[in-house]
Amino acid sequence: MSYHAPLDDMLFSLRLAAGEGAFEKGGLYEDLGGGVLESTLSEAAKLAAEQLLPLDKIGDSVGARYFDGHVTTAPGWREAYAQWIAGGWNSLAASPEYGGLGLPGLLGAACMEIWNGANMAFALCPLLGQGAIEAIEAHASDALKQAYLHKIVSGEWTATMNLTEPQAGSDLSMVRASAVRVEDGSYRLRGQKIFITYGEHDLSDNIVHLVLARLPAAPAGTRGISLFLVPKFLPGDNGRFIRPNDLRCAGIERKLGVHASPTCTMIYGDAGGATAWLVGEEHKGLACMFTMMNNARLAVGLQGVALAERAAQMAHAYALERRQGRGGASHGQAAARIVEHPDVKRMVLTMKALTQAARAICYETAVSMDRARRDGDRCRAREANERAGLLTPVAKAFSTDIGNEVASLGVQIFGGMGFIEETGAAQLMRDARILPIYEGTNGIQAVDLVGRKLRFDNGAALRRELADMWRIVEIGADFAAIDAVREAVNALDAASQFLLDADPSLALAGATPYLRLFALARGATLLLKGALAGDRQRAALARFFADNIAIAAPSLARTVIKGGPSLLEAGAMLDA
Amino acid sequence: MSYHAPLDDMLFSLRLAAGEGAFEKGGLYEDLGGGVLESTLSEAAKLAAEQLLPLDKIGDSVGARYFDGHVTTAPGWREAYAQWIAGGWNSLAASPEYGGLGLPGLLGAACMEIWNGANMAFALCPLLGQGAIEAIEAHASDALKQAYLHKIVSGEWTATMNLTEPQAGSDLSMVRASAVRVEDGSYRLRGQKIFITYGEHDLSDNIVHLVLARLPAAPAGTRGISLFLVPKFLPGDNGRFIRPNDLRCAGIERKLGVHASPTCTMIYGDAGGATAWLVGEEHKGLACMFTMMNNARLAVGLQGVALAERAAQMAHAYALERRQGRGGASHGQAAARIVEHPDVKRMVLTMKALTQAARAICYETAVSMDRARRDGDRCRAREANERAGLLTPVAKAFSTDIGNEVASLGVQIFGGMGFIEETGAAQLMRDARILPIYEGTNGIQAVDLVGRKLRFDNGAALRRELADMWRIVEIGADFAAIDAVREAVNALDAASQFLLDADPSLALAGATPYLRLFALARGATLLLKGALAGDRQRAALARFFADNIAIAAPSLARTVIKGGPSLLEAGAMLDA
Repeated sequence: MSYHAPLDDMLFSLRLAAGEGAFEKGGLYEDLGGGVLESTLSEAAKLAAEQLLPLDKIGDSVGARYFDGHVTTAPGWREAYAQWIAGGWNSLAASPEYGGLGLPGLLGAACMEIWNGANMAFALCPLLGQGAIEAIEAHASDALKQAYLHKIVSGEWTATMNLTEPQAGSDLSMVRASAVRVEDGSYRLRGQKIFITYGEHDLSDNIVHLVLARLPAAPAGTRGISLFLVPKFLPGDNGRFIRPNDLRCAGIERKLGVHASPTCTMIYGDAGGATAWLVGEEHKGLACMFTMMNNARLAVGLQGVALAERAAQMAHAYALERRQGRGGASHGQAAARIVEHPDVKRMVLTMKALTQAARAICYETAVSMDRARRDGDRCRAREANERAGLLTPVAKAFSTDIGNEVASLGVQIFGGMGFIEETGAAQLMRDARILPIYEGTNGIQAVDLVGRKLRFDNGAALRRELADMWRIVEIGADFAAIDAVREAVNALDAASQFLLDADPSLALAGATPYLRLFALARGATLLLKGALAGDRQRAALARFFADNIAIAAPSLARTVIKGGPSLLEAGAMLDA
Repeated sequence: MSYHAPLDDMLFSLRLAAGEGAFEKGGLYEDLGGGVLESTLSEAAKLAAEQLLPLDKIGDSVGARYFDGHVTTAPGWREAYAQWIAGGWNSLAASPEYGGLGLPGLLGAACMEIWNGANMAFALCPLLGQGAIEAIEAHASDALKQAYLHKIVSGEWTATMNLTEPQAGSDLSMVRASAVRVEDGSYRLRGQKIFITYGEHDLSDNIVHLVLARLPAAPAGTRGISLFLVPKFLPGDNGRFIRPNDLRCAGIERKLGVHASPTCTMIYGDAGGATAWLVGEEHKGLACMFTMMNNARLAVGLQGVALAERAAQMAHAYALERRQGRGGASHGQAAARIVEHPDVKRMVLTMKALTQAARAICYETAVSMDRARRDGDRCRAREANERAGLLTPVAKAFSTDIGNEVASLGVQIFGGMGFIEETGAAQLMRDARILPIYEGTNGIQAVDLVGRKLRFDNGAALRRELADMWRIVEIGADFAAIDAVREAVNALDAASQFLLDADPSLALAGATPYLRLFALARGATLLLKGALAGDRQRAALARFFADNIAIAAPSLARTVIKGGPSLLEAGAMLDA
């Protein structure tokens, strides 16, 4: 099991996404200029290699343990978490007002990739905390911010997101947890939440839960859901947070992967009601959650990139070392390294090309989010915000789909050894499997893309994205695989037009292949852009992507345009 | 966790593959006529449901246990194996001379699907035994047959295949295990073998190992390998097999899946040499193994079909029950069953369509094998043999690839519950992951297809296969999705011609996408054939397959034809 943060590739891709001059004075990322970006990522890579990576395997084999309401993390976890806080890594993005460094999301995105490449089960804890920080910053009262935010930003306390209930997964309109207001302005909250990541653990003195629940007489559906802050420990008379709240962890799940990340069932208000405080307005809880939805979805996309990167590194190293069969450059009696066999080359190149394409899409998304917040030009900021909205479902779904595909190819390259847990290739595949499911299933991402994002501003955001792709095709006219890139963009253009005009059920029927098509066209153009700016190796991989992966685009467009009626016809029989 | 053998679908597909009149007097399968086929499969389905399925989950969670050379199977395993023998299921295919029933491979194939659908870890034991029976029947001396075959056929003793060593996986030329002849005509064998399925266990009184090893002064490479029979217990003075041979199990692997199937490291000859007997001629061991290679590869393909079928059944049932979101036929406040959402319909239909296509290809392969052995017309028998050779790599690789894809889609439909081991969806995905690896990786299947099978008889077998596809396209001219089917066959035609003429390294570069293309064209035409003979439901699923899955064919053909140069260019840099 090994992983080196691929700093060269990352920096190349970060700079390409940020654009010319971004790290210079007056640029979008002037605070990352002068070597700050490079030195921060080097430090992150060091922490990942020295503290997080060595714990990944023991986390998988020992896992988090539950006994009588308490969760014990795997050996070494507590020490690593202490290092994590001490290094200040938890506070990169948060506002300086609460002890954060206020650094841009692009840096956070790059770090997120590094943490997850080394140890996804560990990285999940701060990933979700990040979402909570954003929600509290944006929506909580000053009193709540003063009481909780400093410690969550520093990482001294962790924070969780409590959305899911057994009957309410993708559909939060069915949330049943309830809260009532009491005299002092706080609330008493009751209900059961499931699948709560790091809902209970032994890493920190307090855990701050953000919980969705319904107030009495709230409207039905998602417009009747409110967001609450519910700490594990309440302040006592001396102001110290030592008074247990009325909540408990009732168990943790036995899962396919990320064994070291405790997935908790949380019970609130068994003894009358957990003390809770409203975050944002009554009945506006879902809007508060949406504040951070894009960021969390991008973060999950980056988890996909991270696991794909690691799987590709491991498989490539193994293919350079393992000898089987003849052919390639081998002569005489010696067996060839398996990387010399064309079908193994295809697998390794597919792993690398998909990873780089997904990374490029994720970083473009991160830059758009930063520009939306930071650009002084209101029009540019608005357009960047729409672009972030358009790209987010693609970044989340494509990166996590390819995270799974690449991890599975990694197992394949290891052959029989890949099926043995010892190698670690299988763990990556098990860990990756949650990514297309959580933070909105990939099916929901596709529906979001086709049903909402495509129609933003009458399709203007989409048209701007297509125009950017066409621009790259134009300047890349001499590229070896320009035909395949052009056809991919063309296919996306045609499928987009079809969906904008289509009957809703036909549009939804084509959502998943359309998202893949979008990612292939966007990935091919971004890799081409990189090829024009990079060396021969980048150009060769971009060409491989175009001629062997993006080449699926025309067929995907035809699935979108022609596949719907047969899906609806055959699908009607599934109900029988 | 549930599974019902899909007898209607299976029988439909079996009859279609067998052809008109096959089960009547004088037909290829007259011995399965008069209801024998139907009643045997019903009985098999009963055993699977009552004995094997209930053990599948405990097999996964408890697994096989190793201690001090001994392997204990999971609770209930011994009793189930006794039932298996008592029912006579082990002896379906073997020759009546040794207690077998001599029934055709098509019936065995259908039963294989049923056993694996219920409990793949259990079914692996007889699956490998079947290969050993064939090898011994075809190549061993009469004395060996008399001494061992009756008990292996009945199942009283199990048999294993010992090929792999740490340095010799896909490449058996590197086998180092060695054997020397001693005075009495037997041999003394020494060496280490890994990944030996059911190499040691507590199900039977004796275990008969077939082992590849080298004789002194054997030629290098695969032409110097011989096959040996090495029983765990040797006959003592009283003729009873109670004298321990010089071999032992040194441990079992901790694997991603099929936990209940012990994967053993076997040590032969630690105390001087295991007593062994030659099977077949000296140095001709690999040829003996090839006798049964096609059968074993088809059996693995059927494992893929079986797991896909079960995953599809489970996901469909869950999608009919789980309620989330609005839309489809739901009205008012009630949430819709998720099967009503178009993207879920797409997933369920994809699972079902891929499963049926893979099953159809596997059964065609089984019929070709039977015809090669049974048809009195020598020319037809020879052509059938070539067809079996052509279809086998497709049946193995496509069915196991889609086994993984379908199992993963199953996890996706279960959502968060799919990632929890309790549901059983994740187990199918874990179990399925070995299938593209063992019995020749799917990369090796693709190389076999492109490098050897395509060129059989100057491409005549391929041309006959294409002609059969075109014939179906012709009679299906009125089919709703005939355009997509025609294009798929067209694409296969073009890619095949390209490969027959191509430079070898370019041909190998396109092997994997070509195999997929072959399967999509063959699958689309077989489903179309079924649609013409079947009801509206079959026609709808065939249409879905053509317009949403086989539609990838033109892009795959372009990958084969155009993708090679970029693969070789970028691939050269992987060596750096």
